[in-house]
Formats: sequence, structure tokens, C-alpha cells
Amino acid sequence: MGIKRRSMLTATTLGLTVSTSTSSQAQSAPQGLKSFGSFHIGGRQASLNGYPITESVFTKGAAPTRVDPNGDFEVEQMYVQYFLPSNQKGKFPLLMWHGGGLTGVCWDTKPDGNPGWMQYFFNAGHSIYVSDAVERGRASWAKYPEIYQGPPFFRTKKEAWEIFRIGPKDSYDVTPSKRIAHKGQLFPTDYFDQFGKQFVPRWTVNDEQTQKAYNALIQKLGPSVVMVHSQAGNFGFHAALAAPDKVKAIIAIEPAGAPAPGPELDKLKGIPILIIWGDYIDTQEVWMRQQPASVNFAKDLNARGGKVDWIDLPKNGIQGNGHMVMMDKNSDQVAALIENWLHKNGLSS
Amino acid sequence: MGIKRRSMLTATTLGLTVSTSTSSQAQSAPQGLKSFGSFHIGGRQASLNGYPITESVFTKGAAPTRVDPNGDFEVEQMYVQYFLPSNQKGKFPLLMWHGGGLTGVCWDTKPDGNPGWMQYFFNAGHSIYVSDAVERGRASWAKYPEIYQGPPFFRTKKEAWEIFRIGPKDSYDVTPSKRIAHKGQLFPTDYFDQFGKQFVPRWTVNDEQTQKAYNALIQKLGPSVVMVHSQAGNFGFHAALAAPDKVKAIIAIEPAGAPAPGPELDKLKGIPILIIWGDYIDTQEVWMRQQPASVNFAKDLNARGGKVDWIDLPKNGIQGNGHMVMMDKNSDQVAALIENWLHKNGLSS
Repeated sequence: MGIKRRSMLTATTLGLTVSTSTSSQAQSAPQGLKSFGSFHIGGRQASLNGYPITESVFTKGAAPTRVDPNGDFEVEQMYVQYFLPSNQKGKFPLLMWHGGGLTGVCWDTKPDGNPGWMQYFFNAGHSIYVSDAVERGRASWAKYPEIYQGPPFFRTKKEAWEIFRIGPKDSYDVTPSKRIAHKGQLFPTDYFDQFGKQFVPRWTVNDEQTQKAYNALIQKLGPSVVMVHSQAGNFGFHAALAAPDKVKAIIAIEPAGAPAPGPELDKLKGIPILIIWGDYIDTQEVWMRQQPASVNFAKDLNARGGKVDWIDLPKNGIQGNGHMVMMDKNSDQVAALIENWLHKNGLSS
Repeated sequence: MGIKRRSMLTATTLGLTVSTSTSSQAQSAPQGLKSFGSFHIGGRQASLNGYPITESVFTKGAAPTRVDPNGDFEVEQMYVQYFLPSNQKGKFPLLMWHGGGLTGVCWDTKPDGNPGWMQYFFNAGHSIYVSDAVERGRASWAKYPEIYQGPPFFRTKKEAWEIFRIGPKDSYDVTPSKRIAHKGQLFPTDYFDQFGKQFVPRWTVNDEQTQKAYNALIQKLGPSVVMVHSQAGNFGFHAALAAPDKVKAIIAIEPAGAPAPGPELDKLKGIPILIIWGDYIDTQEVWMRQQPASVNFAKDLNARGGKVDWIDLPKNGIQGNGHMVMMDKNSDQVAALIENWLHKNGLSS
């Protein structure tokens, strides 16, 4: 493909002992459940007027129902589900924010049926708040172009296979047995189609609304640790800029973007930030274009006296992780790195 | 509105002692959590070809991404989240299937923040499987008209206010304080807009696909108790017709439809079925049209030697429940009726 392996974009010297041992918390028996539940947060009311009335049968065998599309709707809210452990070790709630085209499900049980990071960090004693961002999953979505300003996009399996760095460009095939993954790939490729069932449509026009809902969540929960993946990187960093007193740490897994360098970043100096990147970056143009944003962010923030730790997994002896690190076969190993980092920063006992 | 109160559609004599006491299980301390997780089930691959390629910025500050809408997608799957208690009292898994325009969230924490039936039945010792049906919430949805055969419908707050029998026709107002609920209404009306954040778009063209996914869930889990609400009534009854050896009981909360009377119903003779209806039916044309389907179903099935119990809540001294019984202020009281019924049928110890 003409893309050569380039020198790694290591922004800071790794200030961590990378260890494959899992933390003591995660190895203990499953946590007691103090409580669990969910809520919607943020959003606003939108009203539509002037559209024609129709009749439709909604339930087979039922009489037709008159459909008047005009009226009031709740839009741009976010869904949040929480699990509070009996034996809390985390100093603050752990908020898990998914990436583009996905929902909070990406943190839950992995496509291969094994426990995901939601289970890992709950069992490690964190109060877990997993959200579906505005327009995704249980957050619901609104009519377009009447309310949302444009149409949604649907990610193909081929695009996901490539962008998530499971296999190189054009190695996807409609027949699972014919797909050729990256050598040493740790994604459970036999379950790639199962993973495909998690994909949800996404819009490109709702960033502001999404940020607003995330900011509202931080205001509701107060001091929190925010774990972001991919598209949510920007949302997490900007949530911290909006409430640097409340965002107590950020764990950014392959953030697709980051705030531009500049004096604004001084606000984040007091916040421990961990940025993790996986393998095969230099095989995928999208990430070669997108990774520099977080590199420049980390460099600038640290130059200002910030506390950004950067883990380039393959540089630290952990090969084979694509973009969906939390679903990879070594997800517990990477989770343990994160848990150790939280512990070292006084955020998990 | 010219609709008079009519005689109640009580299909069978109530074979239950209606009691406001909650079951001992539900009063005990919160259950231990043996495990929790989720999966997608059902669905198929769909492929699109021949649509134009575009470029879009997906993440603010990130470089534009080329969007090729052509390719393969997983479609028509269903999402299922489970919570397994340490101290299991339920004989079989309890599957909770939501109604139209909603997701599994309707069983979770109520809009007023109090625990819902998901918490109630989990604490009572049931293994809980809450699903988002095909096209809803975390199940995702597919492009239309390319894959789904038509457009979605978005329920207005006014329609919900009326159809869910929170207030009479035209008593909804955009200003919450101006809404006039039914007298004695037990829905927490102060949280109606919060409830509105749970609404998701729905299609009228996916019943067959939805049924298929529910049937696949029954095949995966084996012997199960199915709790259905509203639109899911038909899905539950038909799942039982498809697998009468595996559906061990049906609890139908205000089923919007039911299979037509006839010899086919003989298959359901061995299955205990509980049908529950709330208050204000005769104020709402939709329910006056739709309730008879389950009345006729219950009458015919019982005439064939079936085991359908019918609880008309107001006829049994419980006034004030609209369509969203699981969110009403007395939701624990109605849950206790159900738990007692399960106990009497040997389905909960």
C-alpha cells in the first residue's frame, strides 16, 4: 500500500511500569451490587408543525392508528446506566464514553462472550456510569432534516474491519473465513460479525449537542473519572475544559481528536491524563491523520506542566491491539494497566 | 368526547387474591449479583451496492473521512442485557419485552428515579433478560428504504400522554404545569417529560423480523417466562405458539394485540398466562379497539382448557394505572401481584 512503518509518535516518556499482572481488585470475587439503574440526561424539547397526518397499523391484527407527526419531542438527551459496587475502591465514579457508530455496549460483554471492561472495572470496585451518547442506542434520535440538520451514516463491516485496524486495507471479505486479519491481531476475529451487530448509525452534525449532554452529566455526578474511546476523546477533553474542577482524570483510548495546543490547555494542568494507543497505526491512513491531534495535545499540555502519560502498547511489549482494545483477547491486561495507573494516581485504593 | 364508560371486559373470573403486600423476596435486601452482561441475537447480513461516495468530517478537528455507503451490514438483530442473581428464586429466566416506541429502559429505573420492575424482579430472585427489540435502542436500526421497507414514526408527547392514558384527549399542553391528568392518575406526571426522553422511533414494517429475533432468543435461553408490554403482547404470544415447550409462562401487561381465536391456540393450553389491564380504558378509543383482541384470545383459550388469568386492576380495587403500569407510583404493588402469581404457578420459590 506504499505506507512505510514510521517512527512511533511517543509524546512523553512512559512513566509507568508496564506489567501484565492484573490488579488485586480485578482478581477478587465478583463485586457485590449496591444498586443499579439508569437515567436520561440533557436534551431539550423540539416541536414540529405543518406536516400531513397519516394512518398506520402499528401492531399486526390491531386497528389502524392515526399518525400526526406534528407536536413536541424530547431530543438530544443522553442515556446513562450505572452499577454501584458494594465494596467501593474507586475514589470517584468512572464514566465510560464510547466511540463513533457505537453505544455503551462496546464496554460490556465482548463479542466473544467474555467479560468486558464494564465488568472488569465494576469488579475492581468502581462505580460505573456507561452512557449512550446523543443520537445513539438508548439515547434515541430525532427526525432529520427537521430536527437533526442532516442524514445519518451507516458504517459498513468493511470500513469497520479497516478503521478498527483488524485487518489491512481490502482484507475484508463478505465471507468470514476469507478475511485476512493483521498478523498477531488480538481482536477475536471469529466474532467480528457479532461485533457488527453493535454498530449504530451516526450523524456528523450533533457534536455540540453531544458535548452539552456530556457536560450536563459531569455537572450531575460531580467529581468523576472519564474514560473515553475514539470519537469520545474530544468530548472528554472538552468536558474537562468546561469543568476542570470536576473531571478528576481522563483515560483516553485511541482518541480520534483532541483540543489544539494553546493557553486554554493550562486549565487541564492539574488533571492526570492517560492516553493509550494500540498496534498497526501505520497501516491505516485515518489513524496516521488523526493520532497527531492527541500527540500535539499531550506534548503541549506536558510542556505547560500537565500530567499526561502516554502508553504506546506495542512500544511497551504489548503487540496486536487494534482500535477496539476493550474487546481484544488481552483486554484484561490493558485494563490492569489502567487500574494500576488509577491506583498510582490515588484514584483507586 | 361522547365515549361512555362501558361494562368491563373481564374475560375470566379472577383466580387470585389481590393483595397490596409485597412478596417476601422483594422486601429482602438487594440481591447478590452472580453476573451481568449483554449480547445481540438474531438478524442477518444485508448488502448495499451502487450508492455514491461522499467525504465527511466525523470528529471536530479531525481530517475528513471518505464515506462509501455501499457494503455489508448486520441488520435486524436484537439487544439483550442480563442480570443473574446470586440467590435465584425464579424457576426460569424472566424475559422482559417492551412496547412500541420504547426500549428495555422502560423496565429499568422509573422516570421519577425510583426502582422499576427490572430492579424489583431481580431483587425477587429472577434471572432478568431485558431486550431492546429489532430497530430500537441498542439493537440498532438499518437504512430505509434500502433495507427497512419504509420510514420510522416518532411519537409526540401529546400522543404518548393520551395513548398511555395519562390524561384524556387534548389534556396535554406543551407547558407541563398546564397538563391535566386523569383524576387519580398514578403516573408520576411531574416526570412525564423525563419519560419522553425514553421514546425511540419505530417502524411499522418490521414485525416479522422482530418476531424472528424474539424466537431466536427463546431458542437460545430455553425454558423461560416471558413478560410483555403493549406491542410486545403479540410477539410474546407468537413466541409461545412457535415454542410452546419453551415458553413456560406469559405475563402480558396491556397487550396491544393477541392471536385470533381458533384451534391454533390449543398449543398454549399448558402455559399459564396472566393478562393485566389498568384504568381509564374507556376514555381512550385506541384501547377500546385493541383490548378486545386479548379478551377474545383469553376467552377462546380458556374455553379450550387453557390457563389464562385476567386481572382488571380497577375491578380489583386498584385504581389509577395508565398504560405504563411499570412506571406508576404503585408499580411495586402490581409487581407483587405478578410475583405472587408466579409463586402460585410454581415459577418462583
